[in-house]
Formats: sequence, structure tokens, C-alpha cells
Amino acid sequence: MFRHQKELQFEVKVERPDPMLAKRVQEVLGGQFGEMTVMMQYLFQGFNCRGNEKYKDMLMDIGTEEIGHVEMLCALIGQLMDGATPEDQSEAAKDPQLAAIMGGVDPQHLIVSGLGGMPINSNGVPWSGAYIVSSGNLLADMRSNLHAETQGRLQVARLYHMTTDEGVRATFRKMLARDRYHQYQWMAAVAELEEKNGVVVPASFPPEAEMEAQEHGLEFWNLSDGQESSEGLWATGSAPDGTGDFKYLENPEPLGNIPRPEVPATQVHHDLDRDFVNKK
Amino acid sequence: MFRHQKELQFEVKVERPDPMLAKRVQEVLGGQFGEMTVMMQYLFQGFNCRGNEKYKDMLMDIGTEEIGHVEMLCALIGQLMDGATPEDQSEAAKDPQLAAIMGGVDPQHLIVSGLGGMPINSNGVPWSGAYIVSSGNLLADMRSNLHAETQGRLQVARLYHMTTDEGVRATFRKMLARDRYHQYQWMAAVAELEEKNGVVVPASFPPEAEMEAQEHGLEFWNLSDGQESSEGLWATGSAPDGTGDFKYLENPEPLGNIPRPEVPATQVHHDLDRDFVNKK
Amino acid sequence: MFRHQKELQFEVKVERPDPMLAKRVQEVLGGQFGEMTVMMQYLFQGFNCRGNEKYKDMLMDIGTEEIGHVEMLCALIGQLMDGATPEDQSEAAKDPQLAAIMGGVDPQHLIVSGLGGMPINSNGVPWSGAYIVSSGNLLADMRSNLHAETQGRLQVARLYHMTTDEGVRATFRKMLARDRYHQYQWMAAVAELEEKNGVVVPASFPPEAEMEAQEHGLEFWNLSDGQESSEGLWATGSAPDGTGDFKYLENPEPLGNIPRPEVPATQVHHDLDRDFVNKK
Amino acid sequence: MFRHQKELQFEVKVERPDPMLAKRVQEVLGGQFGEMTVMMQYLFQGFNCRGNEKYKDMLMDIGTEEIGHVEMLCALIGQLMDGATPEDQSEAAKDPQLAAIMGGVDPQHLIVSGLGGMPINSNGVPWSGAYIVSSGNLLADMRSNLHAETQGRLQVARLYHMTTDEGVRATFRKMLARDRYHQYQWMAAVAELEEKNGVVVPASFPPEAEMEAQEHGLEFWNLSDGQESSEGLWATGSAPDGTGDFKYLENPEPLGNIPRPEVPATQVHHDLDRDFVNKK
Amino acid sequence: MFRHQKELQFEVKVERPDPMLAKRVQEVLGGQFGEMTVMMQYLFQGFNCRGNEKYKDMLMDIGTEEIGHVEMLCALIGQLMDGATPEDQSEAAKDPQLAAIMGGVDPQHLIVSGLGGMPINSNGVPWSGAYIVSSGNLLADMRSNLHAETQGRLQVARLYHMTTDEGVRATFRKMLARDRYHQYQWMAAVAELEEKNGVVVPASFPPEAEMEAQEHGLEFWNLSDGQESSEGLWATGSAPDGTGDFKYLENPEPLGNIPRPEVPATQVHHDLDRDFVNKK
Amino acid sequence: MFRHQKELQFEVKVERPDPMLAKRVQEVLGGQFGEMTVMMQYLFQGFNCRGNEKYKDMLMDIGTEEIGHVEMLCALIGQLMDGATPEDQSEAAKDPQLAAIMGGVDPQHLIVSGLGGMPINSNGVPWSGAYIVSSGNLLADMRSNLHAETQGRLQVARLYHMTTDEGVRATFRKMLARDRYHQYQWMAAVAELEEKNGVVVPASFPPEAEMEAQEHGLEFWNLSDGQESSEGLWATGSAPDGTGDFKYLENPEPLGNIPRPEVPATQVHHDLDRDFVNKK
Repeated sequence: MFRHQKELQFEVKVERPDPMLAKRVQEVLGGQFGEMTVMMQYLFQGFNCRGNEKYKDMLMDIGTEEIGHVEMLCALIGQLMDGATPEDQSEAAKDPQLAAIMGGVDPQHLIVSGLGGMPINSNGVPWSGAYIVSSGNLLADMRSNLHAETQGRLQVARLYHMTTDEGVRATFRKMLARDRYHQYQWMAAVAELEEKNGVVVPASFPPEAEMEAQEHGLEFWNLSDGQESSEGLWATGSAPDGTGDFKYLENPEPLGNIPRPEVPATQVHHDLDRDFVNKK
Repeated sequence: MFRHQKELQFEVKVERPDPMLAKRVQEVLGGQFGEMTVMMQYLFQGFNCRGNEKYKDMLMDIGTEEIGHVEMLCALIGQLMDGATPEDQSEAAKDPQLAAIMGGVDPQHLIVSGLGGMPINSNGVPWSGAYIVSSGNLLADMRSNLHAETQGRLQVARLYHMTTDEGVRATFRKMLARDRYHQYQWMAAVAELEEKNGVVVPASFPPEAEMEAQEHGLEFWNLSDGQESSEGLWATGSAPDGTGDFKYLENPEPLGNIPRPEVPATQVHHDLDRDFVNKK
Repeated sequence: MFRHQKELQFEVKVERPDPMLAKRVQEVLGGQFGEMTVMMQYLFQGFNCRGNEKYKDMLMDIGTEEIGHVEMLCALIGQLMDGATPEDQSEAAKDPQLAAIMGGVDPQHLIVSGLGGMPINSNGVPWSGAYIVSSGNLLADMRSNLHAETQGRLQVARLYHMTTDEGVRATFRKMLARDRYHQYQWMAAVAELEEKNGVVVPASFPPEAEMEAQEHGLEFWNLSDGQESSEGLWATGSAPDGTGDFKYLENPEPLGNIPRPEVPATQVHHDLDRDFVNKK
Repeated sequence: MFRHQKELQFEVKVERPDPMLAKRVQEVLGGQFGEMTVMMQYLFQGFNCRGNEKYKDMLMDIGTEEIGHVEMLCALIGQLMDGATPEDQSEAAKDPQLAAIMGGVDPQHLIVSGLGGMPINSNGVPWSGAYIVSSGNLLADMRSNLHAETQGRLQVARLYHMTTDEGVRATFRKMLARDRYHQYQWMAAVAELEEKNGVVVPASFPPEAEMEAQEHGLEFWNLSDGQESSEGLWATGSAPDGTGDFKYLENPEPLGNIPRPEVPATQVHHDLDRDFVNKK
Repeated sequence: MFRHQKELQFEVKVERPDPMLAKRVQEVLGGQFGEMTVMMQYLFQGFNCRGNEKYKDMLMDIGTEEIGHVEMLCALIGQLMDGATPEDQSEAAKDPQLAAIMGGVDPQHLIVSGLGGMPINSNGVPWSGAYIVSSGNLLADMRSNLHAETQGRLQVARLYHMTTDEGVRATFRKMLARDRYHQYQWMAAVAELEEKNGVVVPASFPPEAEMEAQEHGLEFWNLSDGQESSEGLWATGSAPDGTGDFKYLENPEPLGNIPRPEVPATQVHHDLDRDFVNKK
Repeated sequence: MFRHQKELQFEVKVERPDPMLAKRVQEVLGGQFGEMTVMMQYLFQGFNCRGNEKYKDMLMDIGTEEIGHVEMLCALIGQLMDGATPEDQSEAAKDPQLAAIMGGVDPQHLIVSGLGGMPINSNGVPWSGAYIVSSGNLLADMRSNLHAETQGRLQVARLYHMTTDEGVRATFRKMLARDRYHQYQWMAAVAELEEKNGVVVPASFPPEAEMEAQEHGLEFWNLSDGQESSEGLWATGSAPDGTGDFKYLENPEPLGNIPRPEVPATQVHHDLDRDFVNKK
């Protein structure tokens, strides 16, 4: 069960409205790596966690914090939209500067939400449940979380340069700081789990089943012209878990067959007649 | 520019059709972490790569390999659907066993694709461009790739147990081996980049801008009852880059204000009258 | 079966083209509460109506009218786009005013539809079947319809201020008038059905099944700091159907258990080892 | 800012696993009217509320409660999936009963989430930000909330009959009780606001602007054969706000023009030549 | 403006309910090429038609007919669901045959729509505005329509074999007949327009602009191993409009450059340092 | 299996950056008829092709070429974004011209992709697997391909006028030339298949099953006022396959029944009481 405190986690106080910026901020609210994504991702991972209280509690701590980040971004967008009105567009015809702004404003902020934040990205695409990951495998999910915070912090950093409003920037700095911590946090969790289970996910897949195909687990297939790719650690070093050395295949050849699928029954209506089939 | 060889990268030869399994295999073809996702993700990252030939070449190698994995899975699904016909459903009324199978078959395999693989997941949801990530920041994208291969291998491992068909399993084993290698590969790339730039993304964000909010970059906020979360490396150790020690806030209090957004202009039609406003 | 008359239900005649406005008008054509939504919602409710001719006929009347509203909005958007050409963008580089307009034009109106209306909202998101509701329960659906017309009229009212073109405004006035009537209409239908069946949907759920949990049907749980919420009719009055008095829980405590889900079988690959489990 | 308590709001304890039911329960978790929808809808309405603390506080109370309902449903689905394994499918080939069950199980519960709840509906469609409404107009949103709880309770009532498991039913009874209360709650809020502002939304649209089209605000257009629709309160009574009497148009004729859009510039490439145009 | 007649265009009368079939029929109601698609596609093309009354009138005739086909399919699905109840699932636990059926039933038909048709496909994916095409170019759209009717008729033909119910089949036969006509119709329109404007769309693109690249307008690039593709009319014949002869490039070589995109400004945070760049 | 060459198929070299154009170019990269669509459509058709090597090989040739077109468009968009930075927005406040440009730039190009191409259309809507068609019926799919290239070339032609940059135009000219060839190619394939199987798809549907409904396969139903539609080849001529003459129904009357669906079981909770039913 959850409870709500009226104060925001961090202060949100913009210096002046900026409806164009409000549209751009939507990316880190309702975009692929916005706060809604990490909020729902950590909550679902926490709700679904089986048999490990330490991780579950940690996920619930962070997931709960992220609900408050969605709250902060709605407050931010609301302030950036303060004073905007639908009339601005009819005024815009007379004033290039205003017209320019209207072109960059999210029309739904005026027509649909009445100046409030929305569960959409900076192009107006609705947030999707398909953005989040909760797989039940802890290491898999911690890597997912690290990646989400990485993308998220990158986006906030880019947004930071899109304004010189010190109030907005102060909020972004708090978000950058938290995203910094969250990157640390998931790295620590990843390290702890890799230490226990090894670095390849899933660890519990029976090794004997992999035997036959094992060599392919260390090969780099060079399928694009040029061999610049041979210079990386992935091509010349050893596997991070020391199970063998990488092998760079300069001119890999396919090992499989040419597929020859069966001609289907008439009722599938491929409309293949005998002539076609004979040419096979 | 690309070229195509007729042979598959690895052999695909199922022992017997299994249309229920065909539906499930769609997850690793057209799902959030299916082969279409890694194919498009690596290709876009490669196409968009700026100023680093080694990484670009490597991304193109792997992206090109993944197009062939989509090809292999279509071959696999095609064989699993061999011999299936729309008539099976009208027969199913007479036979519980057949009815049970029909209930688990993807109806679109019969009605829409005529027994072929589709760009959808195991529930029929179409593949979406919103699944992929190409951010321009190399470390961000390598972490994303590691996470994608992690989720992908986990899903193939689960699918592996869903069949005892040795032909299908042989294909899955090849995929598991390649996904093992790809996890190694992205780990190596991540290690190389973290070594160069530090572990927090983005590295180029000006540190002086973070100064003010710096303390919050090391704090764990305990917002869920219980303190099991204090036992992890994320709560008690040092930041992975040695920039300081984590701090566990047992009873964190909000640092922000209570938001008080402005009452909008009449033309926004919030319909707030004076009574409402006075109560604010 | 349906028939079409060539005349529009109401006249559509704009004074001058305005491609920026055309983009915004898309919201009430193909948005969540646009005319496509009410058209498809009423038609599906009418098509699916079981056992009540009076309601079915009424739904078919209104649903059929709404097809004509989609037609009117396509006519409106078409006129707003009159004379626009793709070349405008290449001209825009030389002229700030034109550039400003181009920034606010929906690029798909030029590239995709060739100056016609589209089944998308003002941000270009395609209309979705997930916008509509047809539940089979009449009262549930009438409430849905009332809400749809409410949101729809609100959006047209906001759009109204976005132009001073008297031709466009005349069309909007007709839509506002019809949306006014439709709000009345669904209110009347709701009143009639509530009179018959009671105000809680569904009415036919067996009351004895609800007995045990009945008290929770009158409680307000105060889960956000502050008690301003205690001042509303929902907190202090009686239930609208007189079945009891509301109860305001100032400090509600959870009544449930802490969930302890089972550790899954190995084949699910959660990768939990004994250490983890023991800590549970 | 938010906090989390480990106990669920109400107990969740199923008698026995039932993976087919788990799939169906997804509808009220991640469907159009599932708990995610009301949670996000009330939270966004609360976050965006301008100038009315009583409503804002109330929205935050309920929105916060709904986060806990998402939590309860994840706990429920988790228990329904207890003991399920991917191997079930390969076993299913030997056993019609098991095959039947597998056909009705959500494959993503096994392959993707590792036995956990997901942000999808009962057909696997991801939850969408386009499901929710936060318009800034209080009455509009309260009507939306009433409708959402109406649909939601209807769906839980239908699900109730899909199981005889007394543990599951006990949880559903709690949800039905809360949905009963929430219907009362939004009705009370609607009544309070209609009392203040009148029943037509938005109230602040200038009446003089509606003058010209006023008559159309009371007309029922009979556009489907038959006149059963004339029997309802919407056709014969007075407007709920007493502004006039409804008028039933038996044989309504269109009042508008036949649209004659302009032939576009060559660069739009409609490919209309003179012959075509002359026929106009 | 539109009008509705109560009779269906063709009779719909199933012999017996079949809820599994109801799910499959959704494909041709709300799928990519279902009746909703052709209905909305023809209506939008008609609404948007500029300057050619004959085509506009024809599109309105057919679009209006298709609304009635959506109506017929809702009637069909409704009858297939007759008598189904949510309780079926709880009964299914005791009866393999019933369990098998439940596994193949669309759960939303029971939980969401109360036994009615829905705007979704056979896998439950909502209909999307992105399915339709209205480009303003007549020949482009007629080709699109021909293709839509082609896919649509193919799907109905496959569905036909999924039932032995003579009532259902009679409805499908009517749909097959109409889809046959509609294929003829669009072929005739295509022929008429190709006769006038030539076969390449758009016809109005200035030929001198194509001059430079003209040769590439007749080349087949053989980019997949093997030369079976050289046997088709596309490789050896002349262009259908007689503008030249096709040319089969056995070993095509790329004609372009290797792309070398610029290193971005620091504020984009690609995190490329000098070492990386030097390697370029 | 696939291979990659570093050179682009055709040169891409823009004269000067143009971030507004970059947004518009996304339509032909990731839109409904962009290069991603034809790439995935031809690849899936090729992968799924059963029993006809000539067509399969041809599909693989073209599908492989199209991967390279996606590559070219990413290169193009990358160059158009060269030098753009997030800071442009904060500068825009001071400069109407810059503000105008920012309003027309895709914000995700700056925030999400770091100046790279994305799998989205010109309005930011992610590419969807629902755009493509692979039906297994060759003629159906060739018609689909013809239509896709038709729409695609139309869109490129419109884009061509949106810039005067000769570098961009040179790339577009190459695309127009290839799209010209691809239209020829699919026309040739269609002609070849129609010759073999007849013009109606599917050809293999048993004619005796169509007998009863045959007349409706030649009728034009005039359901929109006016008879301009009687002037086309579809109304007066013979069927293209000579199976009969078209028949123009001036005043078609419905041939079906009025649907009277059954009142559902109580557990479906339609809440219909006896009064309602009696009125039926």
C-alpha cells in the first residue's frame, strides 16, 4: 500500500513560462526512457520479485521514489505552460515570433490537457507498457535498469542545454544527480549478482545442453567489409568469465542449409500450381 | 549496401510440425527482445555512428548477422506450421485434442500469413520501432545492447524447455551460443568505454553544473517500509568510480515545495469560479 | 445498411486557408475524443445492442449522424489546406514567417495525404480502436458516451479560440451545439436507466456476494497528507442510493498480508540460489 | 513524494494456481479500464490540478490507493502462476487437458515475465497512455472517472464468475466494494460541480457565441429508419438544465453545402489532368 | 450526411454458436485488411477527393456499403457468441473439451464487450488509423484499394474453411462475391487511370528531373546469390510503358561513398574523445 | 545469411544541414510506406516463400537492396542534422528565425537519437510491424508491393519539392528511379501471375462454393446520392476476366434481415430487466 506527501521530493520553480520547452520535457516524462518508464519498471519488478527480500525492498524504495519524479515533472511542465492560452494561435498570424513558438508547442497541451503534463513523449506518442521490462531474472533486470538510467540521464543532460532558465536547470540538476546515483546503484547490484552467478544470463541453463554449440559462443563473425572490428576487446581478448578466448572469423561461411519449405494445402490458397512447384 | 547468401547461418530442421510452438517462437522473432529488435537496433546504431570506425564496423558485423537470425526464425516457424490448414479448426469441434491445439495456435498464422513468420510477438502484438535504442552515446548503447542480449537469451532458454523436438532444440542451442557471445561482446565494449570515459553516462556533462546537487548522487532514499535494502552494495559501499561513499537515508524527508499551479485563463475552460479559487 | 447524401449536415466554408490550424483540428477528428471515436463508439454500441430496440435505434441515429461529422471535419481540414504545397518548405528558408508556419504544419498533410484529413490526432498519432467502449451494459455505455461528449465539447471550445476565421467558427458553433445536445441526451438516458436499475453498475451482481466486503463500499481512504478531501460530498454525505453513510478514514491501515510469492522452478531461470532463498 | 508499506491493502490468497485465469485477470490490471488506468488517470489529474485544493487532495488520495491495487493484482497473478513452468507446453502434447490449459495461458507469462503480472491486457496488448484522461476541467474529468469505475466494476463482476476459487473471489469482492465506493464518490463530485457550474461542459464558453446555433442544441436527428428512439427522455422531455424542450426531427434534411474542394497545385501530384477537372 | 436502414445488406444467420470462431472472425472485422479498414479507407478517400466527381461518387458508394459490412460482421460475431457466459471458464476446469474451447475464445468478448464484436483483430490488437491510405493521388489509391480487397478476400477464403456451419458460410459467400466485385472495380479504375496518365505514379513528376538517374529506373540488382530471379518478366522484358528494356545486373557494385558523418558538438554528449576520433 | 559492404548503393552528400527537412525525411524512412516497410515486407515475403524459387530469389534481391536504402536515408538524415545542438533551443528565444526552425525540428533527433535517423515517421510515430504484408499468396503480395512502391514514390516526389539542396535532390532522384523500376517490376510480376491464375485472388477458392452468391460479384451498389459513379468502367463494362457484365443497381435495397440478438445470461451483466425485453 502507498501513501502520498504533499511536498515534492525536490523544489520545482521555473523562472518564466516556456511552452516550447514544455513539449520537449515530455520526452523525459512519458518517453521510452522517461520517469514513467522507470517508475513502472521498478514497481513491476518489485511487485513480481520472488524469494529475495533484499532486492524486492530495494526495488520498492526506488520505484516509490520514481512516482515522485513523475509528480515533479508534471509540476515542471505545468509551470512552463503557465499563462498559455488557445488564443495564442489566432494571435500568431500577426506576429512571426509568436507563430514560431506556436509551431513548437505541443497542441495537446492546449487542447487536450488544459496546460498539464501528459503520458506522452516529446512527439506526442502515448507511453506504452511495451517500454518496460520485468523478467523475473534479477541480473537481467538489473542490467535493464542500468541501461534505462543511462539513457534517461543522457536525455536530461541534452535537455539541460535547451534552456537557460536557472529554475528549470536546478530541477534537472537534481534529476541528473539522482540518475547518477541510480547508475551506481544498478552497477553495484549487477556486480553483486555477477559475482554469485557468473556473467552470462541465465546462469541456470544446463551447460551440457550448450556443449554442442559451444564454439559458437566465442566467435566473432566478420560480416561487414573491413576488419576494424578486430581491434576491440571483444575480438581478441578472453571471455570475461575466463571460459575461453575469442575467435575472429575473417571470412565466415554459412553453416546451415538452404530452406525449402513445403508447399501448403490448397485451403491455404497460396495459388501455387504445378508449374511453379516443378521449378523448385 | 548488403548482399544475401541463400544458406542459413545455422541449420534449421525440425523433427515434426508444432503450430502451438510456432506461436510461442514469435516472441523471440518479433517481441520486445526478439531478433528483429537486435537486428534493427544494431543496424541503426551502426548507420548513425559518428566518428568511430572500429565501433561502427563491429555494429555492422553484428547487425548484419542478426538479419540472418530473423531469417532462421522464419524458417523455423515455417517448418513448425508445415501441413497446418484452416480446416483444422472446423475439425476441432469433433476432437478435444485438436481443439486444444487450435486454442493455442496463432490464428493469424492461418488467416493472415499463410503459415509464415510474422513481425509480431507471441501475443500477436506488432513489432514496434519503439523497442529499439540508438542514442549516439556509445556507452549508453553498449549497455542497452548487453541488456537486450540478456533478455533475449533468457527468453530462448525458457522456450528451450517448451519442446522436446531435437531439431528445434538444436537451433535454439545455436542461438543460445550466439547470445552468450553477444553478451561477452557488449561486456567487453562496455569495459573498454568505461575505462576511457568513466562509468557514469554521459561523461561529458560539465561537473561544475552538478556541484550543487552532488550529495544527492550518493544517497539511497529508503521510501518503502523495512530496511532490507540497506544490505546491498548500493547502500553501504563506495561509488564504483570511487567518487565517494553511499549514504543510506533511513527516514528521508521531502526537500521540495508543495506545488501551487496558477489558475488558467478563461479560454482554457477549467471552469473554476471564484469560490473554488478562494479555497486554495 | 447505410446511405449517403452529398450535402454536409452543416455548412463548412472557411474564409482563408490556415495549415497550422488544420493540424490542430485533427485532434477533434482523429484524437481520443474526436468525431471518429464517437462515430465508432455509437455504431459498435448500436450494432452490439441486445434486446432493447429503443436504445439500439437511438444509438444508430446518433452514430449515423457522427459519420457525417467526420465528413464535415475532412471538408474543413481540406479547405484549411487549400493552396498549400510542398514547396512551401523550401521557400521557408528565406522567410521567417513562412518558416514559422511550416514548423506548425503537420508534415503528413503535405507528404502523405495530399492536403486531406487523416485518421490521426493533432500530434499525428493514428486513431486507435482502443479509444472506444462498447460493453453491452447500457448504463455503463451511456456514462461513457456522456463523458466522451464532455471531453469532445471541451476540446472544440478550446479550438474555437485558436482562430478568428468566422467560417471556421461557424462550423465549430454547430459542433458545440450538437455536443451540447448529445450531453443532454446521454444525461437523459443515464437518468432513465439509473431510475430503473439503481446507480451502481452492474446492478445484477448478486448482493449476497458483496456482503462480506460491504463496509469497504462506503469508506474514503485518506492516503495523501492533509484532509482537504474530507470536505466533499463524497466524504460526509450519504451514498446517492441511500444505502448508507460515507465514512472518512483519517489514518487507514492496510488490511492485507505481505505477499511472499513462491520461488519458481529452475526452468523459469530466475537464477535464485540457496543463499538468496534463505534470506527470504 | 510517495511512501510504500509492505502490507497489501487487502489480503490476496488464492486457493490453487490457475494460469488460464491469470491471463484473464490481466484485463483488469493492464487493460483499457484496468487498475493501471485509474491509477495513472487520478495521479495525472491530481498532479495537474490547478487552483482547487479539495479536489486535488481527493484525487491524490484515490490515485495513491490505486497504486496499491496494481500491487494487489500483481500479487494475485503471481499466485495464479505459482508452479507453472515452460516445460508444461512440451508435456501438453501428451495430455489433452494440459494442452487445453496451455492454449489458454498467456505465453508471455512464461517466456517474458517469469510468472509475474505485466502491463498488458487479457490479449497481451500493452497498456497505453492513450487510455487516460486529464483535461484540466474538473467536471469533465469527474465524469470520466465515473465512467472508468463503471466499466472497471463491470469487468471485475464478469471475471468473478470465471472462477470458483474462494480466495480469488474474496479479492474480487474487495475490488467490487471499492469500485462501488468510487462510483459513489465520482457521482457526488459530479453532483457538486453540476450544482455550481451547470450540467453542460464547458460552462465558461461564452453563451453569445452559441446563440446562432442554439436551436441545434435541442434537436434529435432521426437518421436511422424507425422511430423507436422517439420514446426516450432525450426526445420528448426538457433539457436537464431547463433551457428548453427537445425537438424530435423525424425527417431531418442536411443543412450544408456539397463540398467542392480546390484542385491542388501540380507539386502535390494528384495527377489530375484537365479532362478530370472539366467533369467536375 | 448519412442515413441508416435497419435491414442488413445480406442475411446473417448462423446455425449454432461457436465462440472460438468468433475470435477468428475478428480478423476480417478489425484486422489490417478487415471491413473497418476498407470502410475508413474509402470514406477518407471520398471525403478528401479533389476535383473529380465521378471518382468521389464511386468512393462514397463503396465506402457507404462497407459501413454495412462492419454491421454484418458484428451481427455474425454476436450470434457466434450467443449463450456464452463468463462461467464457462470456471466450468472448464472440469471438462477438457470446454477447457479447449475457452483457450481459443477471445477473453475480451466475455470481459470487455459482453458478447459483441470489437474493433480488434483475431489476436486482440486494436484497429489502427495507420492501416488506411488516402494519398490524394487517384491511381495510387486505386492500387491500394485493389490490394486491400485482394488481401481481404484471401482472408475470408481461409476463414471459410474454418467452419462447416452453413449459415456462417452463406455470409462468407456473400462477402467473397462482393470482394470479387470490388477487385474487378479497382482493376477497372486502375486501367482507366493508367490509360490516361501512364503506369508510373506519380505521372506529374517532371521527367527532366529524372533524367540523370534514368538508367537506374530499368535495372534489376541481383543482390542475393543465384540468378533464378533473371527468369521473370521483370528482368528480361520491356518496361510496361515501353520506355525501355530491363537490364539484369548480375554482379552489381555499389555506386556511393562510404558515409563519414561529422563528430557532433559536445552538448550532444556522444562522449567521443580525441583518441576515438583520430582512429576515424 | 547476409553480408555488408561499406559503400552506399548511391552517393549521399547534402550541400548544407537542414534539421527541419530531416524531420520530414523520416516519413520515407520509418513511415507507413517508408524504406523500412518495403525492406521488411520483401524480406518476410522472401523468407516465407513456399515452393517457388524464382519469386523467392527475386524477393530476396529486392529486400536486400532495401536494407541499403534504409542505410542511405540514415546517412541523409545524419548529414541534415550535422552541427545541430540542443543549445539551439535556448538560443531560439532570442531569434525568431531560429525559433521557427526549432519549432519544425523533431525534438527526438536532439534528445533521443543524438542526431541520427530513427524508426519513426515525420510525426514521430514509431514504425510498426502492422505496416507490412506477407500473405503467402503470391499475387496478393505482388499487388501489395506495387501499391507500396506507388505510395512510396509519391511521397518522395512530394519531398523533392521541399528542398532546393541539389545534394539531397540527387539522392531523391536515385530513389525515384529505383521506385520507378520497382513499380515496373511488380507490374510485371502481377501480369505474369494473373496470366497463370486469373485476376481474382484467391484463384483456388472452389467456384462451386461461390455459385449461389455469384450475381453479387458483378453488381455496383449505388448507395450515395447521384449517379456519377455509373460513368466508370467498373459500372458499365465487362469483368476484366470476361466472366460477365457489370450491373449498376440504381436503387439497391437491402437483402438481409433485421438482426435480433439474444438477451444474454445474467452473468454477462447487461442489466436488462423484463420491461426492456418486452419492448423488443
